[in-house]
Amino acid sequence: MTMHYVPDLGKISVDSVSRLDAYVASREFDRPTLVMDLDRVSAQYRALKAGLGRADVHYAVKANPARQVIARLVDLGSHFDAASRGEIALCLAEGADPSEISFGNTIKRASDIAWAHAQGIRLFAADAEEELVKIAEHAPGASVYIRLIVEVSEADWPLSRKFGCDRDMALHLLDVAKSLGLTPVGFSFHVGSQTRQASMWAPTLDVFAKIWADARTAGHDLSLLNIGGGFPAFYGEEIEAPTAYASQVIAMVEARFPEARKIMAEPGRGMVAEAGVIVSEVMLVSRKSERDLHRWVYLDIGRFSGLAETEGEAIRYQFETPRDADQHGPCIMAGPSCDSADVLYEKRPVSLPLTLKSGDRVLIRNTGAYTSTYSSVGFNGFPPLDVVVI
Amino acid sequence: MTMHYVPDLGKISVDSVSRLDAYVASREFDRPTLVMDLDRVSAQYRALKAGLGRADVHYAVKANPARQVIARLVDLGSHFDAASRGEIALCLAEGADPSEISFGNTIKRASDIAWAHAQGIRLFAADAEEELVKIAEHAPGASVYIRLIVEVSEADWPLSRKFGCDRDMALHLLDVAKSLGLTPVGFSFHVGSQTRQASMWAPTLDVFAKIWADARTAGHDLSLLNIGGGFPAFYGEEIEAPTAYASQVIAMVEARFPEARKIMAEPGRGMVAEAGVIVSEVMLVSRKSERDLHRWVYLDIGRFSGLAETEGEAIRYQFETPRDADQHGPCIMAGPSCDSADVLYEKRPVSLPLTLKSGDRVLIRNTGAYTSTYSSVGFNGFPPLDVVVI
Repeated sequence: MTMHYVPDLGKISVDSVSRLDAYVASREFDRPTLVMDLDRVSAQYRALKAGLGRADVHYAVKANPARQVIARLVDLGSHFDAASRGEIALCLAEGADPSEISFGNTIKRASDIAWAHAQGIRLFAADAEEELVKIAEHAPGASVYIRLIVEVSEADWPLSRKFGCDRDMALHLLDVAKSLGLTPVGFSFHVGSQTRQASMWAPTLDVFAKIWADARTAGHDLSLLNIGGGFPAFYGEEIEAPTAYASQVIAMVEARFPEARKIMAEPGRGMVAEAGVIVSEVMLVSRKSERDLHRWVYLDIGRFSGLAETEGEAIRYQFETPRDADQHGPCIMAGPSCDSADVLYEKRPVSLPLTLKSGDRVLIRNTGAYTSTYSSVGFNGFPPLDVVVI
Repeated sequence: MTMHYVPDLGKISVDSVSRLDAYVASREFDRPTLVMDLDRVSAQYRALKAGLGRADVHYAVKANPARQVIARLVDLGSHFDAASRGEIALCLAEGADPSEISFGNTIKRASDIAWAHAQGIRLFAADAEEELVKIAEHAPGASVYIRLIVEVSEADWPLSRKFGCDRDMALHLLDVAKSLGLTPVGFSFHVGSQTRQASMWAPTLDVFAKIWADARTAGHDLSLLNIGGGFPAFYGEEIEAPTAYASQVIAMVEARFPEARKIMAEPGRGMVAEAGVIVSEVMLVSRKSERDLHRWVYLDIGRFSGLAETEGEAIRYQFETPRDADQHGPCIMAGPSCDSADVLYEKRPVSLPLTLKSGDRVLIRNTGAYTSTYSSVGFNGFPPLDVVVI
């Protein structure tokens, strides 16, 4: 069952998997805990940066805003993409320069735009006229990029239509931005979460290269392309190693956007997911009836205490137990709350040891992204997911 | 658009709707805030209790564990159903007697069972042999009730198969409990969240009355029936008034379970939902393209900051704006985070004023249950839902 993903980092990665494992093995945890390995974050930053070349890495803070992770990335020279005033404040407190922080949420409170501008933030995202009006009023003269909607995606988890606008609206918004005294500098998009192969980027890049060319023809001297996230993490299905993946993506970008003087990439999941492991515990193993084919396995962590991305069984985490050498059988997995929606995997059951029982430790691999902050403040009276950074 | 639900409480309820409205209208809020009216909680408790008669009300703490709500319910004589050690500690701190608290989660950590037992908790739920073993070891001699699975439900939101066991397993577990030195006292079940009409309980009660009779025939002197929750709140579709609803349910229970010396009911949503209103704000109104038929309306609160029950568009909240007198049109509604899954209503759009714009206040009615504790600790850097109790 052990499926450690060893990327193109040689000894560093193997050592840091061992470092996490050694830490976890030597300690007791009385509640679900995410353990993050900063050296693994450093290694992944370097691997991605090696592939991204001249592109700026803007770490998507929302993936994991642990203070120590941000501080380490500041030290490494990373830039940051912030979703909110809170995330900007965090990056500034950890030493990031305001010129290296983009306010990438297309949905911003007017007072937060003003606050960010006062802190020195000069780069904002928008996908709507009303947002441009807010930015022009509260961050006059700022640079803006227009988020484009991705209509086709080969990602494991294609995004909804929530963000971005279509070609005609985007060209219109560039004009609007200019008329409002803003500096429209380019486009952004998101190819879709967990885009496992670099080649999957091509259709999206092709579409946006045409819009980019149209905008330049219309007189907009675009200089910035923000390619967003989508950099994958290992959840059991094969992915390309980070340096090779990133360099292929950038090669495709360079070929299609030769005028892009600045390229931004926003890895979040791809930066930190594999640097974390959640230590959890089996609460109960049961069957609903003697005729049930599947056991139910209840963990002390569920959808409302850190594993929100199991919604729709979208992200399939890898589990390890001390009994993995024993015979396995299919299980439905669920969280510990009294909420009937707190079920992790039911449509596609998970194979776990037949000997598994209450009190057994379960490691959930590659859970460094999109876990700790999703955790509820206290649903069912359970404390939020604890985070330990080593 | 104003659709205040006025239950069978006469002047009290009308006054407390006004009390909430007066409070909200007189204040500014710089972040999404749930305002809870304690007098409205009191009125609802009395209305439910009037219908429930001799049944004990065990308030489902998970619905809203605000300290002041618990304290008020203690004063009113309510008992409590707790999902965790944290909820038990809260109830005890607010003055509840341990004999009036049930530990109703069927998934309990062994050390939490021991802790609860040491505090004087004597009534535990179980639906599996392994759980009974844990209870027998850590709360020797305790009373247990076996949770039955509801296979058919007419509720708005039928529950999954996560909780409960079938008839044969339940009869087996009664025997197991006895053999372990526990005191098996009865059954529990949950008819389904938001069971809008009392008559919808009949098919479930019919099924369980047979199991109850079978258990007694098998020699178990059952005395307790825990009918769980399912008591509805008003979300736009007609519901029965609480006293009438509760008295019909209890009449059906009395007719089918004449030997039940103790009846427990666990209203959560039905107790507190209508006592709360969330004050939120429009962040952005936009269209993705000139051809879009629907506007997108982005609020400063979303699925990860309090409105988790919009998942699958299950619970349809009622919105009020200062522009409700203007012409309306369909909107897709979404939260403020950079998460594409943070969409509230898309399949069935919401009708909102065409004049609605960024900065407008939006009241979300009857949001006193299952909002504040679902809120994430800080997803996207946004603070958790603020709660004010008046």
